[in-house]
Amino acid sequence: MVNAGDMNGSGNLMDFLDEPFPDVGTYEDFHTIDWLREKSRDTDRHRKITSKSKESIWEFIKSLLDAWSGWVVMLLIGLLAGTLAGVIDLAVDWMTDLKEGVCLSAFWYSHEQCCWTSNETTFDDRDKCPQWQKWSELLVSQSEGASAYILNYFLYIMWALCFAFLAVSLVRVFAPYACGSGIPEIKTILSGFIIRGYLGKWTLLIKTVTLVLVVSSGLSLGKEGPLVHVACCCGNFFSSLFSKYSKNEGKRREVLSAAAAAGVSVAFGAPIGGVLFSLEEVSYYFPLKTLWRSFFAALVAAFTLRSINPFGNSRLVLFYVEYHTPWRRKTTRLGKYPVLEVIVITAITAIIAYPNPYTRRSTSELISELFNDCGALESSQLCDYINDPNMTRPVDDIPDRPAGPGVYSAMWQLALALVFKIVITIFTFGMKIPSGLFIPSMAVGAMAGRMVGIGVEQLAYHHHDWIIFRNWCRPGADCVTPGLYAMVGAAACLGGVTRMTVSLVVIMFELTGGLEYIVPLMAAAVTSKWVADAFGKEGIYEAHIHLNGYPFLDVKDEFTHRTLATDVMRPRRGEAPLSVLTQDSMTVEDVETLIKETDYNGFPVVVSKDSERLIGFAQRRELILAIKNARQRQDGVVSNSIVYFTEDPPELPPNSPHPLKLRRILNLSPFTVTDHTPMETVVDIFRKLGLRQCLVTRSGRLLGIITKKDVLRHMAQMANQDPESIMFN
Amino acid sequence: MVNAGDMNGSGNLMDFLDEPFPDVGTYEDFHTIDWLREKSRDTDRHRKITSKSKESIWEFIKSLLDAWSGWVVMLLIGLLAGTLAGVIDLAVDWMTDLKEGVCLSAFWYSHEQCCWTSNETTFDDRDKCPQWQKWSELLVSQSEGASAYILNYFLYIMWALCFAFLAVSLVRVFAPYACGSGIPEIKTILSGFIIRGYLGKWTLLIKTVTLVLVVSSGLSLGKEGPLVHVACCCGNFFSSLFSKYSKNEGKRREVLSAAAAAGVSVAFGAPIGGVLFSLEEVSYYFPLKTLWRSFFAALVAAFTLRSINPFGNSRLVLFYVEYHTPWRRKTTRLGKYPVLEVIVITAITAIIAYPNPYTRRSTSELISELFNDCGALESSQLCDYINDPNMTRPVDDIPDRPAGPGVYSAMWQLALALVFKIVITIFTFGMKIPSGLFIPSMAVGAMAGRMVGIGVEQLAYHHHDWIIFRNWCRPGADCVTPGLYAMVGAAACLGGVTRMTVSLVVIMFELTGGLEYIVPLMAAAVTSKWVADAFGKEGIYEAHIHLNGYPFLDVKDEFTHRTLATDVMRPRRGEAPLSVLTQDSMTVEDVETLIKETDYNGFPVVVSKDSERLIGFAQRRELILAIKNARQRQDGVVSNSIVYFTEDPPELPPNSPHPLKLRRILNLSPFTVTDHTPMETVVDIFRKLGLRQCLVTRSGRLLGIITKKDVLRHMAQMANQDPESIMFN
Repeated sequence: MVNAGDMNGSGNLMDFLDEPFPDVGTYEDFHTIDWLREKSRDTDRHRKITSKSKESIWEFIKSLLDAWSGWVVMLLIGLLAGTLAGVIDLAVDWMTDLKEGVCLSAFWYSHEQCCWTSNETTFDDRDKCPQWQKWSELLVSQSEGASAYILNYFLYIMWALCFAFLAVSLVRVFAPYACGSGIPEIKTILSGFIIRGYLGKWTLLIKTVTLVLVVSSGLSLGKEGPLVHVACCCGNFFSSLFSKYSKNEGKRREVLSAAAAAGVSVAFGAPIGGVLFSLEEVSYYFPLKTLWRSFFAALVAAFTLRSINPFGNSRLVLFYVEYHTPWRRKTTRLGKYPVLEVIVITAITAIIAYPNPYTRRSTSELISELFNDCGALESSQLCDYINDPNMTRPVDDIPDRPAGPGVYSAMWQLALALVFKIVITIFTFGMKIPSGLFIPSMAVGAMAGRMVGIGVEQLAYHHHDWIIFRNWCRPGADCVTPGLYAMVGAAACLGGVTRMTVSLVVIMFELTGGLEYIVPLMAAAVTSKWVADAFGKEGIYEAHIHLNGYPFLDVKDEFTHRTLATDVMRPRRGEAPLSVLTQDSMTVEDVETLIKETDYNGFPVVVSKDSERLIGFAQRRELILAIKNARQRQDGVVSNSIVYFTEDPPELPPNSPHPLKLRRILNLSPFTVTDHTPMETVVDIFRKLGLRQCLVTRSGRLLGIITKKDVLRHMAQMANQDPESIMFN
Repeated sequence: MVNAGDMNGSGNLMDFLDEPFPDVGTYEDFHTIDWLREKSRDTDRHRKITSKSKESIWEFIKSLLDAWSGWVVMLLIGLLAGTLAGVIDLAVDWMTDLKEGVCLSAFWYSHEQCCWTSNETTFDDRDKCPQWQKWSELLVSQSEGASAYILNYFLYIMWALCFAFLAVSLVRVFAPYACGSGIPEIKTILSGFIIRGYLGKWTLLIKTVTLVLVVSSGLSLGKEGPLVHVACCCGNFFSSLFSKYSKNEGKRREVLSAAAAAGVSVAFGAPIGGVLFSLEEVSYYFPLKTLWRSFFAALVAAFTLRSINPFGNSRLVLFYVEYHTPWRRKTTRLGKYPVLEVIVITAITAIIAYPNPYTRRSTSELISELFNDCGALESSQLCDYINDPNMTRPVDDIPDRPAGPGVYSAMWQLALALVFKIVITIFTFGMKIPSGLFIPSMAVGAMAGRMVGIGVEQLAYHHHDWIIFRNWCRPGADCVTPGLYAMVGAAACLGGVTRMTVSLVVIMFELTGGLEYIVPLMAAAVTSKWVADAFGKEGIYEAHIHLNGYPFLDVKDEFTHRTLATDVMRPRRGEAPLSVLTQDSMTVEDVETLIKETDYNGFPVVVSKDSERLIGFAQRRELILAIKNARQRQDGVVSNSIVYFTEDPPELPPNSPHPLKLRRILNLSPFTVTDHTPMETVVDIFRKLGLRQCLVTRSGRLLGIITKKDVLRHMAQMANQDPESIMFN
């Protein structure tokens, strides 16, 4: 029933690939893959294994192993990503505390671990144990006073500068791709673009190490985005071990999508949120099979992290993360000196951050304090309320109370911290170090939310007869929870920056365990998306992709203009005609000249220059390889040999040189649309089928070609012409 | 830049639609829609509104309203679906209790409401309050004894039969489409199939009413699936109010996807789970915009339900749901008498269910009892452990204890209930009444899980020195939680039946609040999917779709065979050539004859029978309407008028009748593939672009046509030929 062999376009490609040509079937750097072709190559591979599996038991077992290799890769990614995240957590923990002091009993202990093992574990003194010594205590034996403060301040800045300098130097020298959050690039890679080395082993190593350094240095950045990058590097590493994935760029991207889910899973301890983040925010092609595998990888990763992390049970530890930021300047003067830039920003951050208790501590600690409600035992300044001496209620049910002086001073400090955080985060983002965006955004939202929450609480306490409070807020009851305002504020701010919705809510409640707050969280996510969309449809990652000019065809943009394929295709009116090959009338030299004079990725093959009836498409790369190979190995092939793409050789005059048959590299099923096809449909086809190019015909005659870049250029053009249309999506 | 007007294929369609032809642009019943065409019609509509909006303020406001109508529809769906679910909950609550007795103070109160308002609210007596009277108390003034038991038993059966009879009669007479869960049909409809009336107002009304009746009758079925159907009916109703959705089958399906999410949201009180269920299980075309809107609809629906439901805060009420079942027999003798079938099954269910306490109560109550852990205050038989008299621990921290006689008898009753539930559920499913599958599956899993849990617990208590228990289970500690086993069992069983993964876990933890059990739940979901997939790849809904023979192109099936478009296209070798129209040489009569003699949905238009170069595609329906219209209104069009599809009329001999121009109904951008295109790619194109048909060409010459049905037939054929290949996905 099936005409295997010569008749089959993609099959031929495989037969051809079996020949010992190096690099066939791979892509050049900064090129776009052809999803359809990758898929068809995978099917061929799969079919071969299936038919072989009937030959012997050993082949059958091999085929089973191949079928399960997807799950094995997921398991390995989950294990490695979880382990790395656990190690990073522990290292950050230790190095952050190293800026303030050292543990005498074991210098590799963090402050908490140091005092945890101490015997004096009464609640109040947990922070102060003899084993843990601040630098001033250790060096000049003073723990209080101005000179001790100044010494501690100075050493804090020195350590921060030292960490930051080490990080930026490592990135600069060993792995320039390790800088930034990596999510925009990963989005672009997942959409089919090739950036060699971006997910390499070297990037993995350097990013892991420098991530620890920059987070410990106290810069306003987070480790979630970079952790996604690290997990994707793990994914890339493990997929290179299995030929199923290493030799197929399409399949490899399925693994990377799942790895991104594992990354978020360990960054927040939110496995479900990770899967949804990968689906909603990062991935391009996300079939259900990838959904299941992502789910598995995220599960393994979360489980591994919990097993490693000594504080695994506590929600605060799931929260043990840091920062990222919201705009990338393309050129600043400072930008030309990346090391100096990092040093300056680190110095400013450390100098301003140290005196304010809300900026000195790590941002994740800050967020968890802001989220927490004021119980009776809470010693935080934010919980310094004036207690009613007659109160007889149980500990957990504390009514609203008037704010004490601690709360007022905390409000001032928070307000200053908020302004500082917003400004410094803008400058931190885009430096040449690994940096994430989630935690700084959440911190900004949480600070604003907590301040609003305290304001409303005090308003309700002092004016409980106001119409808005009267119905639901009796005096002496607990009406307003400022911690919830902080949580909602964090969700809203993060939602506005990234435009996540479903994954945002899931991450927030996996993070906080606040399943009962799902309705306010959902409302915050929807509202922040609406408000942010009013300022522009792009989230931070899409904006970043556009800024960097990556060829990314966003699934979220809708194309609603009434242009036709004929308006976009090349050649345009007045331009030179399309470079084509003819099926049996060009010589090897003609072809080589054509290749030399143009830089197209491929050439349509037509019956003859006159009829222009399309018969197929030949890739530039494969043409070059095939001709080179033929010239080296095939006797009689010379410059004026006729190249033919038909089944049978053309009739040649006597004494003509041996012709060269290239039908095997001809794609006999190129994608075509007619010139009347609306561009809307063309955009849809490019997106959904992941094409690189598409040929335009009318009544079977070839008119032109549309490439992915033409489509992107046209979309940008139309969006500029009619910016209003954006609001109607 | 854009050649609007005559040059544009789809644009012409719209111009044509503006003429007063009835029914143009709609589809016949049991036909498949053309997604690309619907999308392009929507773009045209959208473009018109945008250009009009610049004309006046009023038009601008209208365009804004149009842009926001999507969110408005979502709001309305959420409100109505939430309200209906709340009303159904309350009515089921009341009618279920009506089978056992009545509230004297207010007959419309359920048992719980009746005793809730009673003054005697001590914990033990909550079930027994004087206002609530069992039928035996009311009728013969006896509450204990054999005769009272028999009277109650008899009335229980009578009420059940009465409810079931009423339900099946209503379905039979008024709305045959209201039977079953509706999810397989909704999946099919969302994939682009038209089933008129399936989502009509009449179905909505009857399904809501009969759902209350069948759930109250105590049959082994659930209300979740049917609630999804009810929500989709609401979605269909509201989309018919807005021309944006009512006139476009593609846009309407976006609304329906979101409505399905709202349905699951209210069925389980799980808004996020609803969105994921719609994505993973039900929807076909699910762009990110639909994700956000589904999220909003699910949020509104959940919020409305909570506002209506008096027990809104309790998790048990979120759980207030019933059953569905795992196979549909196509023909049984009983199946020919649907009313009798329902009566017989109801009678059997009622007779067997009444004596066993685990089957008498509603299944959702059963599940919540099985999920619950044994606290100190628990009065359930399942918690009848032998207490250590020396126990001095706090109430919540009870160590493992030996089982008492109550537990042993509960185990027997549970075992019997399990067998009964499995058997009766199989028979209940597929009866001609609304019936859902979630809760019966969960109940089966929960019973099995709880029994295993109790077994392991007792094993650990009596043999805590065994190697498997030794490391983590000290004597006197609480090592095994049977309730968690029940929860995991329920998730595994439901996962096996439906093959949900991510949405399953999210629904389970939204349902139970058990965020900390995410890892065992995920493990259960993945394992049950693997095990079930080993028996066959299809979940219950896909199986049902195949059984009913709906033309559903499943996104989950992978097509990995090596056939080509030429193997599938018609005409096959030896068959009569394809019926085509020529662009300017056929008469009106020729066309009418062709239409009469064939039943194809459309005809390709070629340059001439000789050259067979394709220029476009004409829909049968539009041809008929256009010719009819022309004969009625256009002077000089007679049977031997020439029909032409070109821009200019052909040159005709003198005295020939006035020709008929039909270019306006010609689709100038039909979808084409070459005969060498692998079927894998063709299947991908059909799936992703939602095509109805695709033309096959070689070098611009038309060779044949492939319709969606051809693709489905071919896929079924290949799957039968090579069933083994399924395991390699």
